[in-house]
Amino acid sequence: MNDHDQTPDAPAPEDEREGAYDLGRQAVARIINAVDNDDRAALIAELEPLHPADIADLLEQIDAFDRRRLIELYGDEFDGDILSELEDSIREEVLRYLNPEVLADAVRELDSDDVVDLIEDLEDHEQDAILEVLEDSDRIAVRQSLTYPEYSAGRLMQREFVMAPEHWNVGEAIDFMRNQQELPEQFYHIMLVDPKLHPVGNVTLGKLMSSRREVMLSSLVEDTFHVIPVTQDEGDVAYAFNQYHLISAPVVDENERLVGVITIDDAMAVLDDEHEEDMLRLAGVDEESSLSDSVGATARRRLPWLVVNLVTANLAALVISRFEATIAQFVALAVLMPIVASMGGNAGTQVLTVAVRALAARDLTGSNAVRVVRREALVGLLNGGVFAVLMGGMGYVWFGSPVLGYVIAAAMVINLTVAGLAGTLVPLTLDRFGIDPALASGTFVTTLTDVIGFLSFLGLATIFLL
Amino acid sequence: MNDHDQTPDAPAPEDEREGAYDLGRQAVARIINAVDNDDRAALIAELEPLHPADIADLLEQIDAFDRRRLIELYGDEFDGDILSELEDSIREEVLRYLNPEVLADAVRELDSDDVVDLIEDLEDHEQDAILEVLEDSDRIAVRQSLTYPEYSAGRLMQREFVMAPEHWNVGEAIDFMRNQQELPEQFYHIMLVDPKLHPVGNVTLGKLMSSRREVMLSSLVEDTFHVIPVTQDEGDVAYAFNQYHLISAPVVDENERLVGVITIDDAMAVLDDEHEEDMLRLAGVDEESSLSDSVGATARRRLPWLVVNLVTANLAALVISRFEATIAQFVALAVLMPIVASMGGNAGTQVLTVAVRALAARDLTGSNAVRVVRREALVGLLNGGVFAVLMGGMGYVWFGSPVLGYVIAAAMVINLTVAGLAGTLVPLTLDRFGIDPALASGTFVTTLTDVIGFLSFLGLATIFLL
Repeated sequence: MNDHDQTPDAPAPEDEREGAYDLGRQAVARIINAVDNDDRAALIAELEPLHPADIADLLEQIDAFDRRRLIELYGDEFDGDILSELEDSIREEVLRYLNPEVLADAVRELDSDDVVDLIEDLEDHEQDAILEVLEDSDRIAVRQSLTYPEYSAGRLMQREFVMAPEHWNVGEAIDFMRNQQELPEQFYHIMLVDPKLHPVGNVTLGKLMSSRREVMLSSLVEDTFHVIPVTQDEGDVAYAFNQYHLISAPVVDENERLVGVITIDDAMAVLDDEHEEDMLRLAGVDEESSLSDSVGATARRRLPWLVVNLVTANLAALVISRFEATIAQFVALAVLMPIVASMGGNAGTQVLTVAVRALAARDLTGSNAVRVVRREALVGLLNGGVFAVLMGGMGYVWFGSPVLGYVIAAAMVINLTVAGLAGTLVPLTLDRFGIDPALASGTFVTTLTDVIGFLSFLGLATIFLL
Repeated sequence: MNDHDQTPDAPAPEDEREGAYDLGRQAVARIINAVDNDDRAALIAELEPLHPADIADLLEQIDAFDRRRLIELYGDEFDGDILSELEDSIREEVLRYLNPEVLADAVRELDSDDVVDLIEDLEDHEQDAILEVLEDSDRIAVRQSLTYPEYSAGRLMQREFVMAPEHWNVGEAIDFMRNQQELPEQFYHIMLVDPKLHPVGNVTLGKLMSSRREVMLSSLVEDTFHVIPVTQDEGDVAYAFNQYHLISAPVVDENERLVGVITIDDAMAVLDDEHEEDMLRLAGVDEESSLSDSVGATARRRLPWLVVNLVTANLAALVISRFEATIAQFVALAVLMPIVASMGGNAGTQVLTVAVRALAARDLTGSNAVRVVRREALVGLLNGGVFAVLMGGMGYVWFGSPVLGYVIAAAMVINLTVAGLAGTLVPLTLDRFGIDPALASGTFVTTLTDVIGFLSFLGLATIFLL
């Protein structure tokens, strides 16, 4: 079993892998088997070729019982990078299982920005326990980072970077670097600074390599140089990296002095997190929730938005209850009314999702908001017309009443137009008030389309059918 | 007006900017004003400090009339990079406005991977017209890339990279690079290859800089070296970059020979696109649609999923119509039944979104699928119990019938459990059959919760109330 030498570079045979980057059920089974048999050599042989990110995924996918046994069996092979890759809830669990010496070794391997990420959500005494094992300079760097607001550029940046005075030439920069005892593990640019340590440009190592020694660094700076304030929200940082194709960017303090550098791999991870957050929030799911939460924890996390939905559904029911007399006379109304509400809800969700995404991507701004709202209202009117004909005809054929057909047709036009208006105006308004439109828009919009759908359909029916 | 010297590095004063990276309504107004006045100098002064990506966003946000006039006034200042940054629909429009010489100049500035991106969706004769202006070597490179499948690594990679034999040392690599006439515009690694051109490792330029001349390159290779097959789906490529924190990665052909390199900025753009696609698909929006589509085009793009929803809503109506006699006797049922359906739909959407996201992030795999389905069913059961008590009590208080209370309570438990099962099983099944679960899950799940919701509520009512 431990003659298996799969590496990330040499993917396992087809039948072992389900998707391009899935570990595969057989590999997981072999790993659990090794744990069951207390076979440390087999476990190490299975995990050794895996990237820490894949080991972290594995730990997230197995259950808590196997997770604990695996970590205890793996012992001092446990790598600091695995900790960095774990999602928060599992990580806190894993931290409790690790024996203190293994944890200390693991933490000492990490860069300061990864240590910050690791400990920022822990209790004070847990933070102290981890910080204690660091060297003095690292501990100071981590403590300093923790003074910046959560989700800010200051938490994301690394403090290891290479800078050079703006008046240097290529030769001076190369000589300087080649004489350094230690350079950062990962760096792609040299940051040029003026005498006050304000960053004024950056030069890629590639440009440095391909230029003659006497060329001035200032003549090689990138077009896409972009400075990030240390308090900037990490979502804005990720946007800037994606928008301007940055690879690394200098971070400055309130005096515009260079204090750190953010690299694109961290920005990409933030972009991924932000997307996940938007998607889950739009569906009314707590973005802190995790696939490995327990049944009870998951149920509790799902409850709040379901309670909100219960309230709004009761609001719609209250509207219906005003028309009980009409429904008692024409039961067909009870059959057809969910169609009107459902079409409005779906159209509203379409518009809303487009608007929330466009706001996140900065495609929907003050310059085009009025045009977009008008367009969506017209789209609703147009598609309302299409479904008015379809449902009006169907209502007539089904229940033999032309008036019922007209009523449902009119309700369809009204509700789809409302969907277009609400789907744009609600997120725009929330955004204007600084509330994440992904978080609360859905409930507002579907409540509106439910209420207006039932009200227009049953109201018109009461007027024209009774 | 043209004394305005805003640059991306020196953000405009607060009142000019709405978000961290919005251009601001006043800036847009000044630009449109310049276009209105045919004031080319003012237009150039406004646009000159902007990044091409921001100019592209501006073009997307103004209407077609202004867009055309702006481009014609801007004339030969129009930069190739603006074209690369435009979304597809607007880009095709802009290509028609540009005069052929401006277009030729713009295209010649671009890297081969950007030209591929630019022309891959154009008609053959339009492709030829653009390819004609390129130098022979570039044209061949572009044509070669177009032979790879759309959305594959082959379309994403750049052909400009630096490689070195695996047996070289640092000094040889540095001398080689410093003697090159031309090095790629952007590169961060040297790819090590064996004599058959198989990539065997990569070395960052930073490592090269910080190592003595006699150190072997093979001792400096990165841990996270990862090889990408040229036919791999770009979504998988983006996943690998994010998962393994890659900065650049070698792309190999079917003989495992190095043919190109993908860098993280392109992978980040793909990740962003994939997320947008998932989000829009989940809401039933055509992912090709754009904020700048016309009313007619938008209405047409929204129609298909609304038609699907109409059909499924009619299915639910059909279920209700089987219980007309029951509803005629107890109109309260018509008031309460949308609540059961709505709670099921919301719970189902929560579960579904979590599952779709987890599938996309490779967090939900064959190893934990059974556990996740079981967990979600139990969560549904648990929360169903909570809402059974709430709604049962409310139903009793509202309509004074304890039996009605029990009926709605039972229907709530059934429907929320179905929501948990359907919300996980539907996307897992679609994924297993190679269908994007984001695309079709929503309709399946809400149809199921609607139908089961109405069926259980009205069915139980018929049994126990009549």
